[in-house]
Amino acid sequence: MADYNAPLRDMQFVINELVPLSEITALPGYEEAGEELAGAILDEAAKFANGVLSPLNWIGDQQGAILNSNAVTTPKGFKEAYEQFSQAGWIGLACDPEYGGQGLPALLSTAVNEMWNSANMAFTLCPLLTAGAIDAITHHGSAEQKAMYLPNLISGKWAGTMNLTEPNAGSDLSVVATKAAPAGDGTYKISGTKIYITYGEHDFTENIIHLVLARLPDAPAGVKGISLFIVPKFLVKPDGSLGVRNDLKCISLEHKLGIHASPTAVMSYGESGGATGFLVGQANRGLEYMFTMMNAARLGVGLEGVGISERAYQQAAGYAMQRVQGKIAAKPGNLPIAHHPDVSRMLMTMRAQIQAMRALAFFAAAESDKAMRHADAAARGAAQARLDFLIPIVKGWCTEQAVEITSLGVQVHGGMGFVEETGAAQHFRDARITPIYEGTTGIQANDLLGRKIVRDGGKEAKCLLEEMKATAASLQSSPNMEIKAMGAALGSAILALNRAVEWVVETFPKNAPAALAGAYPLMKCFGIVAGGWLLGKSAAIAKAKISQGASDHFYAQKIGVATFYIHHILSAAAGLAQSVRVGEEVITAMEHGLNDLLTS
Amino acid sequence: MADYNAPLRDMQFVINELVPLSEITALPGYEEAGEELAGAILDEAAKFANGVLSPLNWIGDQQGAILNSNAVTTPKGFKEAYEQFSQAGWIGLACDPEYGGQGLPALLSTAVNEMWNSANMAFTLCPLLTAGAIDAITHHGSAEQKAMYLPNLISGKWAGTMNLTEPNAGSDLSVVATKAAPAGDGTYKISGTKIYITYGEHDFTENIIHLVLARLPDAPAGVKGISLFIVPKFLVKPDGSLGVRNDLKCISLEHKLGIHASPTAVMSYGESGGATGFLVGQANRGLEYMFTMMNAARLGVGLEGVGISERAYQQAAGYAMQRVQGKIAAKPGNLPIAHHPDVSRMLMTMRAQIQAMRALAFFAAAESDKAMRHADAAARGAAQARLDFLIPIVKGWCTEQAVEITSLGVQVHGGMGFVEETGAAQHFRDARITPIYEGTTGIQANDLLGRKIVRDGGKEAKCLLEEMKATAASLQSSPNMEIKAMGAALGSAILALNRAVEWVVETFPKNAPAALAGAYPLMKCFGIVAGGWLLGKSAAIAKAKISQGASDHFYAQKIGVATFYIHHILSAAAGLAQSVRVGEEVITAMEHGLNDLLTS
Repeated sequence: MADYNAPLRDMQFVINELVPLSEITALPGYEEAGEELAGAILDEAAKFANGVLSPLNWIGDQQGAILNSNAVTTPKGFKEAYEQFSQAGWIGLACDPEYGGQGLPALLSTAVNEMWNSANMAFTLCPLLTAGAIDAITHHGSAEQKAMYLPNLISGKWAGTMNLTEPNAGSDLSVVATKAAPAGDGTYKISGTKIYITYGEHDFTENIIHLVLARLPDAPAGVKGISLFIVPKFLVKPDGSLGVRNDLKCISLEHKLGIHASPTAVMSYGESGGATGFLVGQANRGLEYMFTMMNAARLGVGLEGVGISERAYQQAAGYAMQRVQGKIAAKPGNLPIAHHPDVSRMLMTMRAQIQAMRALAFFAAAESDKAMRHADAAARGAAQARLDFLIPIVKGWCTEQAVEITSLGVQVHGGMGFVEETGAAQHFRDARITPIYEGTTGIQANDLLGRKIVRDGGKEAKCLLEEMKATAASLQSSPNMEIKAMGAALGSAILALNRAVEWVVETFPKNAPAALAGAYPLMKCFGIVAGGWLLGKSAAIAKAKISQGASDHFYAQKIGVATFYIHHILSAAAGLAQSVRVGEEVITAMEHGLNDLLTS
Repeated sequence: MADYNAPLRDMQFVINELVPLSEITALPGYEEAGEELAGAILDEAAKFANGVLSPLNWIGDQQGAILNSNAVTTPKGFKEAYEQFSQAGWIGLACDPEYGGQGLPALLSTAVNEMWNSANMAFTLCPLLTAGAIDAITHHGSAEQKAMYLPNLISGKWAGTMNLTEPNAGSDLSVVATKAAPAGDGTYKISGTKIYITYGEHDFTENIIHLVLARLPDAPAGVKGISLFIVPKFLVKPDGSLGVRNDLKCISLEHKLGIHASPTAVMSYGESGGATGFLVGQANRGLEYMFTMMNAARLGVGLEGVGISERAYQQAAGYAMQRVQGKIAAKPGNLPIAHHPDVSRMLMTMRAQIQAMRALAFFAAAESDKAMRHADAAARGAAQARLDFLIPIVKGWCTEQAVEITSLGVQVHGGMGFVEETGAAQHFRDARITPIYEGTTGIQANDLLGRKIVRDGGKEAKCLLEEMKATAASLQSSPNMEIKAMGAALGSAILALNRAVEWVVETFPKNAPAALAGAYPLMKCFGIVAGGWLLGKSAAIAKAKISQGASDHFYAQKIGVATFYIHHILSAAAGLAQSVRVGEEVITAMEHGLNDLLTS
């Protein structure tokens, strides 16, 4: 099992030079979060990730979470790590200082979250879900609810969960059937079964605050009849101390492909008359509330894709730098396999995509800071539109690539990669959930195409594409041939994507299925091109630094990575864009297939 | 867990109409293997695969093979299934009738092997490795060795293994260190440790015939000093009965990501003075002998890719046809998720690639029949050259795609796909070994580029490309617009591939690393284009059948699948071909990266 070392240098580059952080410290309330503080926080987080969370990752996979009479035992060391994690204040990093948070920008908490995910993705799901509960209560809870729940959630004394899915309501939440009956005293009796509840039960904290979607008796059918409830495991007394155990329990845990340490619970509410729940906000607006925190959750899962990919990369690079095997073309003997052109290609494929994914995820996080804090309302609106646009790309693209990257991580090891003790396989198994939960890739792709591109007639898409074109043009005007070539390749990829966007905007109103058949390649193409755009920008920054005399090898490496990306990753963009534009033919072909589907 | 149903209709199409079988029954010795016999064999195999092997697949995964004091217990039901399998004569299907085989063409045994792999890949590794041992002894053993070992291997009374890998000799077999010391009586004392020995120990058979690579005391260093030995678990007495137990044992089993039922053994030879081994053929030619059977083994693993993909497809299609979730664009309510454009895209992506992979693997098998049996020596030589060319593509491309296809199989299930009991995850885990063993994808890609393309100056590549061009031209001359468009798209993909081949032939002598940096995209591009070529041919055959009045929906489906493939899969070819041709830039970029590799 390889150690984890946080990629601080690349993170700092993205934060300080690419985004850059100065745009965030210019926002009201974030003035203090400059390079120095950011550096100190990243260093501390790196120590915790490397020293505490990372060593537990393999143990967590092997032991898994275990259910015994409705109580869950997490793997050895996890509970203690959670206590340390809470005490160090990591949960409340970006939370409201009024309730004990540190009020730092999402840009920084995103970098820190990448580290947690690299170090121990299964562990990190508990704070991720708690953050979702904090978000929901912060934005939609009453003053009393905020006072009662936020301080203990933010301090880590309690944890939170999100209860959406039911056996018949997976991707389609409109059919949620869990019931909420008014108890007559302002509270509700919740009853029903929820599945796939991450950390639905565990031993980290004395209380768990469940946020549950349920339906009131008189609620309209469909998405506009779902309400959101706080349903604590232990009811909280007015003085803040714990009261009686609520009528809810974990009745089983899923046996999963990966993230074994994370208990995925089937939760049963109300077997003895109804679990006491407290309505959040207004009735029948639960799904809308859930969606306000969906952006953060989806960005969080996209970041899991970045984090697990980085971990797999480090594992593979470490192995490839020490394993000696075979003669290397045009090189002296006894070099490690990293020097074989094809192994090097695999490592660079991992590395270049991770750097692109990180850049895009951090860039989106910075947009969320601007959307929240910019002094100018128009600028806030523009940032929110940009963020909304980027979220399905960050979630969809970074998680799909995480599956490919962790698979390459296995491949670099050869036979050793298939042996569990090596550790590469765990990353591959863990990564596989990321394109599924918080909205599958198909849902992200449809969201991008339908809500984010078609709905505004391609306006936001064009706005982003114009920025990309400006970058490509600027690269093309460089006197340096390498940067110039990068600009040319980027420019044609953007044009291909632009044509696909135009085709979709034009086709959707006439033939929605034909447009939707291209949703996946469009999302993937957008991810690849946006990644190329940010790496192209990075290469230009690096080139300028080198021209100014910087001798840091990091900058030469950054240009090399961008060059590799342009030739080996961005080269796929034109084919994907082409696939988008043949939706009608494809739909016809698919209909032929659907008539006779059960064997190939 | 979904059942398996052999895709007989598509197999028969490939065998009878695409290859076609009539070219094989025209070969001396295969006259009897016509459509009727082929149909009967496929039907019987389908019954066995569906009824006996498939139900054991999940049990095998859950129980795994277990080691206890050097003895291995296979999962419940496996031993009995192996007995039935042997008794039904499946092991000797394509083997020499002189030793009890049925002497059928590889084209048919390949179709049958696809079924075994779909039904139970972990089980099938035992007959696959036994086939390797049969091959080695048939081609290189003495008359006495053939008489002693072949009948019992072919009947399934005994099993065989291949012992190549050692801890320091993985992809690079030149450093094999296992020793063979002459015992003075014509036998040898073998000592050393072999790893990753598939079915190195098990309870299926009374004896196991190990084929072991080892080095004689006076052997030259490197690949030309390795000899091949027969090392039976129990020595065989002259009357054919079992004698003493040989000095060899299984000292541990690997804990693997997948194929849990297949015992992957660490074998220790000669702990008590040396295991008795018998030299096969001439001294120091062991690696050469191994390579003569490598084609069959690599075709076998490529076929595992096809088989496991088909199984994953059936699992996913079955689920998608019954799961109802969400409103489907432009369709009435309550349709299953298969009708969502993106789910349909995933299923079609799986299905179209599987049909292309099957066509290519069966096509390669037919070439091996021609190489073996054609009456004309020049035709045999041409078929052998074609087969040699196709093997790294079948192995490399079909197994890489198997990982992607089984991953899509998980994705189609949403959250259910991540839960082990669903069964989709097993296929994803099992598939992951296929791009690794019998030569990693990188080794296949380098083999294609170096030995198969560059060595003859691109002659065989051009020969295949010319055939593809002829097909594209013929499709383009069709009066049918759909077929015409297919021909045009195929034609430009072939041109792009052709340019990449020319670039590689020209560049390799000047700059081998730059050429090798493109080995993987070149191999992948060849697979995609060759698959498109065979599906294009299939569509033309189907169109002709429909014009002749065939009402079988299968033919319409075949055209739909080809159309989808052209637009969604073949569209990647140009980008891959482009990536091949920038090797110099990429090598420079990779060198930048290698200096500073340990975090992204």
